Amino acid sequence: MLYHVRMDVHPPRDMPAAEFDALKAAEKVRAEELQRQGKWRHLWRIAGAYANVSIFDVADHDELHAILSTLPLFPFMHMQVTPLARHPSVIG
Amino acid sequence: MLYHVRMDVHPPRDMPAAEFDALKAAEKVRAEELQRQGKWRHLWRIAGAYANVSIFDVADHDELHAILSTLPLFPFMHMQVTPLARHPSVIG
Amino acid sequence: MLYHVRMDVHPPRDMPAAEFDALKAAEKVRAEELQRQGKWRHLWRIAGAYANVSIFDVADHDELHAILSTLPLFPFMHMQVTPLARHPSVIG
Amino acid sequence: MLYHVRMDVHPPRDMPAAEFDALKAAEKVRAEELQRQGKWRHLWRIAGAYANVSIFDVADHDELHAILSTLPLFPFMHMQVTPLARHPSVIG
Amino acid sequence: MLYHVRMDVHPPRDMPAAEFDALKAAEKVRAEELQRQGKWRHLWRIAGAYANVSIFDVADHDELHAILSTLPLFPFMHMQVTPLARHPSVIG
Amino acid sequence: MLYHVRMDVHPPRDMPAAEFDALKAAEKVRAEELQRQGKWRHLWRIAGAYANVSIFDVADHDELHAILSTLPLFPFMHMQVTPLARHPSVIG
Amino acid sequence: MLYHVRMDVHPPRDMPAAEFDALKAAEKVRAEELQRQGKWRHLWRIAGAYANVSIFDVADHDELHAILSTLPLFPFMHMQVTPLARHPSVIG
Amino acid sequence: MLYHVRMDVHPPRDMPAAEFDALKAAEKVRAEELQRQGKWRHLWRIAGAYANVSIFDVADHDELHAILSTLPLFPFMHMQVTPLARHPSVIG
Amino acid sequence: MLYHVRMDVHPPRDMPAAEFDALKAAEKVRAEELQRQGKWRHLWRIAGAYANVSIFDVADHDELHAILSTLPLFPFMHMQVTPLARHPSVIG
Amino acid sequence: MLYHVRMDVHPPRDMPAAEFDALKAAEKVRAEELQRQGKWRHLWRIAGAYANVSIFDVADHDELHAILSTLPLFPFMHMQVTPLARHPSVIG
Repeated sequence: MLYHVRMDVHPPRDMPAAEFDALKAAEKVRAEELQRQGKWRHLWRIAGAYANVSIFDVADHDELHAILSTLPLFPFMHMQVTPLARHPSVIG
Repeated sequence: MLYHVRMDVHPPRDMPAAEFDALKAAEKVRAEELQRQGKWRHLWRIAGAYANVSIFDVADHDELHAILSTLPLFPFMHMQVTPLARHPSVIG
Repeated sequence: MLYHVRMDVHPPRDMPAAEFDALKAAEKVRAEELQRQGKWRHLWRIAGAYANVSIFDVADHDELHAILSTLPLFPFMHMQVTPLARHPSVIG
Repeated sequence: MLYHVRMDVHPPRDMPAAEFDALKAAEKVRAEELQRQGKWRHLWRIAGAYANVSIFDVADHDELHAILSTLPLFPFMHMQVTPLARHPSVIG
Repeated sequence: MLYHVRMDVHPPRDMPAAEFDALKAAEKVRAEELQRQGKWRHLWRIAGAYANVSIFDVADHDELHAILSTLPLFPFMHMQVTPLARHPSVIG
Repeated sequence: MLYHVRMDVHPPRDMPAAEFDALKAAEKVRAEELQRQGKWRHLWRIAGAYANVSIFDVADHDELHAILSTLPLFPFMHMQVTPLARHPSVIG
Repeated sequence: MLYHVRMDVHPPRDMPAAEFDALKAAEKVRAEELQRQGKWRHLWRIAGAYANVSIFDVADHDELHAILSTLPLFPFMHMQVTPLARHPSVIG
Repeated sequence: MLYHVRMDVHPPRDMPAAEFDALKAAEKVRAEELQRQGKWRHLWRIAGAYANVSIFDVADHDELHAILSTLPLFPFMHMQVTPLARHPSVIG
Repeated sequence: MLYHVRMDVHPPRDMPAAEFDALKAAEKVRAEELQRQGKWRHLWRIAGAYANVSIFDVADHDELHAILSTLPLFPFMHMQVTPLARHPSVIG
Repeated sequence: MLYHVRMDVHPPRDMPAAEFDALKAAEKVRAEELQRQGKWRHLWRIAGAYANVSIFDVADHDELHAILSTLPLFPFMHMQVTPLARHPSVIG
């Protein structure tokens, strides 16, 4: 099932840069892994913002929450989840 | 270039049903045509709403506006356009 | 899977009362049917508003949208859908 | 009487992790106790958020406020309370 | 139990003045009746607006909704309900 | 003259608990004093929130501001003031 | 006492122009009268909007509401009232 | 002096198309005239919306309001005006 | 030219009281000076808030910005500027 | 292609003034450089705010994001990007 997720990152002001960089690197590794598994289907940067639009393809709400809530940057992100259904005008 | 567009449809209360159905049929034809051309890359229904999330892939802002503003349902839709850039964690 | 749905009804000003009453009666029949099927798990009136909070238990987003978008009052309702995951503190 | 409560948790950035974990453990114990008493009737995680939707069944506003305002995480939560009445289309 | 209710009236543009005046007169009769019964405890006009702030004292959510939803002007009002608990600093 | 005031308290995270408790105690003393003087006519807790709804009866805007701005918790409260006029449907 | 009032005019689409012009003319007459009485102390047009910012100087909330609610355009205006107190840095 | 103006057009549903087209043609003539006079310095379409962003260069607020409020489409536009000052990092 | 400015003050939590008091005193001196110059024409306290409504009379946007951005409390204020034009119903 | 960008600066409270001044100086150098390159076409200060309205002319979304996200003050700015298309009433 597909979920549309918008993530806005709010980096903590008081965390040492090296520590936050490590979190970002871990986030990147995890994002690539989930893309290879076919679960993180699309990932786009919103121009001009520290934010992205993502499409996830997972089994159910519990798997979605398990994935999102364990992302390394989760404590510093605001997420907005929208369930996507099939549109009747889609071809193929 | 990619654009994220959310479209919310507000059907006019005072239009005869047959007339609005004709507009919807024309919208469907146009949406399928644009998908076949590769310009309307993704089209998803937002569950529980008369609304969709779409990804367009067009040459520039002018082409995007030309496409969106000539959709048969354009006068009855609210659109929100977000430019999408490449995300550094995208694979492949 | 569980979905939280808030529905706000906006009755059309220009529809004859008898016609809207017929829609409401049909909505009631459908709501009772979906409750008996176990798909519309909870249904509460928001005090002081022509609105409800509902919990649906359906197979996926497509089934949810199919149910919601064919409710007799759908054209006159604003719906807000929230996917619900299991909470780690739930007992039993 | 039933109350719909949405709770959004905003963990304090400057509290030691062990201290906040202790609060979370105490919150879990209290939530389970209130569920066993039949006062916290439903508890769902909002997918992708550190937030929940809950249904409380208590005697009156004072009991609700007494319960909510003494939850261990209360100082770090934003709560939105909605009184729920019986819906005329509910079966059984 | 006490409930704080803000009511904003949106008179229908297309209703004949005499018909709306009759609804207002009926609303006034009902408001006075509920005040005499002690259920509508306070009623204040918000200066500069066709709106009021009210305090209701009723048995439960169901009685509140039954009263509010049968007010003659209910179809033309937006209501916001807030449950009120006892404040620890209240005297007497 | 009557004023409707909603007060939301935002306790400072970095103040020692004892210091804030002293402010709360001073606030309680002042609130009781103003109630005895008939100036703070009503005071209700909003269920589930560190907030209240109050009705003040004072001579004019200047007296209202003098009272509100010298409350011990004023620096930690957001206040919303609404002037209340007599409602034509009030009895007695 | 001084009140800050912002008024936004929403002309009715379905009223004959001559009828609305008559209301505007009556509004102008009344505004001038209230200015001569010293009750409508300031009146400014918000650039680019069919809206104004006004300062009223009246005895109390009831007089303010009586004045505002009987303005010829009142049914077509949204008003926002803010009570103004004396500022400690004002000279003279 | 420069003013930033965002204009959103809300075409009236109940006006005959020919009548609205005439207004749009008159608006275009006026917009071109004001551009030639150097008063309407920039005019851009917001992609995907019946809206524009404009920069006006006029003598003062009164001239701005006189220009905006006499545009043929003014009754069908929502406008948001922002005064622009010189930025210290501008070159030339 | 006239500008309507609403200023909301957000005192910094972590600044020593004496330091902020010095800023407030400097702000008062500057406000009085600008009033004597006729540039800060009106200054009112919003009842119940650490905020004011002001009317400025200055030559142009640049002078307004120069004045506002050099107020001693500017770094701790949120300002909302609205250009005011002459209203056709103003007398005298 | 043209992009409308509004930037609101939120200076960090806890950064030494000299450090933030260095960032501002670097931002100014970069802004001037981008203006000379013709990429930052317009830059205006919003009167009364630590904010600007800018027009960028760049090749695509990726170049826009690359420019904006490497501005020295980017971590302290909120940006809102709007794609601008050609308006049919533009002359010349």
